[in-house]
Amino acid sequence: MKIALLGSGNVATHLGKALKNAGNTIVQVWSRNLAHAKELATNLDSSFTSSLSELTTEAEIYILSVSDDAIAEVASSFPYQDKLLVHTSGTTGIDIPGISGVFYPVQTFSKQKAVDFSVIPIAIEGKEEKISKLLTELANSVSRKVFSLTSEQRKVLHVAAVFACNFSNHLYAIADDILTRNNLTFDLIRPLIAETEEKVQSDLPSNVQTGPAVRQDQLTLAKHVEFLENNAELKEIYQTLSQSIINFYQKA
Amino acid sequence: MKIALLGSGNVATHLGKALKNAGNTIVQVWSRNLAHAKELATNLDSSFTSSLSELTTEAEIYILSVSDDAIAEVASSFPYQDKLLVHTSGTTGIDIPGISGVFYPVQTFSKQKAVDFSVIPIAIEGKEEKISKLLTELANSVSRKVFSLTSEQRKVLHVAAVFACNFSNHLYAIADDILTRNNLTFDLIRPLIAETEEKVQSDLPSNVQTGPAVRQDQLTLAKHVEFLENNAELKEIYQTLSQSIINFYQKA
Repeated sequence: MKIALLGSGNVATHLGKALKNAGNTIVQVWSRNLAHAKELATNLDSSFTSSLSELTTEAEIYILSVSDDAIAEVASSFPYQDKLLVHTSGTTGIDIPGISGVFYPVQTFSKQKAVDFSVIPIAIEGKEEKISKLLTELANSVSRKVFSLTSEQRKVLHVAAVFACNFSNHLYAIADDILTRNNLTFDLIRPLIAETEEKVQSDLPSNVQTGPAVRQDQLTLAKHVEFLENNAELKEIYQTLSQSIINFYQKA
Repeated sequence: MKIALLGSGNVATHLGKALKNAGNTIVQVWSRNLAHAKELATNLDSSFTSSLSELTTEAEIYILSVSDDAIAEVASSFPYQDKLLVHTSGTTGIDIPGISGVFYPVQTFSKQKAVDFSVIPIAIEGKEEKISKLLTELANSVSRKVFSLTSEQRKVLHVAAVFACNFSNHLYAIADDILTRNNLTFDLIRPLIAETEEKVQSDLPSNVQTGPAVRQDQLTLAKHVEFLENNAELKEIYQTLSQSIINFYQKA
């Protein structure tokens, strides 16, 4: 397909490369910042512009990958009423003037790091059935895991991702803090963290829960709470999550 | 070195293989369960027994890998006062009658899954300096990451591991629960979970925190809390961890 990319950040960069490698043509890159547009366009063999009034008319799909805050504004300035403009945000709904669909790769992208797009789930949503079909086709060209999700389902997905990813990373940060305050290095638990994640790639997390809470090892739980006595916040997190583990496996 | 293994579980199995591959000799495997002792001994080309009174006198180090509850009991029945008995537990102290040291591989082991021992941190502790030296030498034969840790430091390490691993896995379970209650699959966030973990292998977690809390995106936080309104436990976890993230990066 012929595609125009609106945006030049991490999502636009990785998605643009994946779409091109899958045989699609990137016709044009637009970015508010002309230098950024040019840099990405050079990598994708496409034209570029920083002016929405110069946007190509040749693309079949216009993919908008800008920050959540900027989606509504850019969409309202999109010059073609009869063209397909889709955003790539997990947190933004479909009901935005100018937006016809959503093409959301469920991954967090870093500029430097290469990604294998074929294993990244893509959640698509179209305002009409024929738009959904077109987006599914495009998504299938880069990923083996394409899902049709409503805006409501994407919200559920986002809440789940906050628990599994944002909160987990914060727990890593707390662990690092506990270790370094005691002159120990985060290196001590990096392999453990890797193994914890690896286990749930082929199993469900509820099948591989370990630790004192699931064993209801009251002696260890009490020792840990005592250790955290001087830090009310960590003590609260420890007790809240331990109790949640106990409740979770009693229910099950 | 000549080693006797007391125990036949996951730690004994993986550690036994790694020690043998590193050029050490496993003289004997003891397990309360003779069939288990025989099975592991066969893999390690060693003799085996289920009776502590038949324990070999030939080993230089006796490694005790049994459940935390059983350590004190087996150690009290260890027949040789002049021999070196060390346990492999992260949560058990060194001050147990019969125990001379600790040889703790900081990893969680599954029976089926092969592990690369060379990258697994090993925390050692000896009741005397010469014991620490011997254990360090043995640990260096299988791992490139050998640390000398006191019992108090191992306790710190264990608390950190509970936060980073046990609690993270529970957050994965909560995410799975949220998704499946809404007819979505955990597959949708497996790649996100993998990337979250991978990032902290080469960076510190506090450098790569993402999500609505660290952005102080109050609108999204409020939407998520509203979504969790009917589940007091999840709402509490969401609010406690979000507030902790906000506090953490305000301090920094």
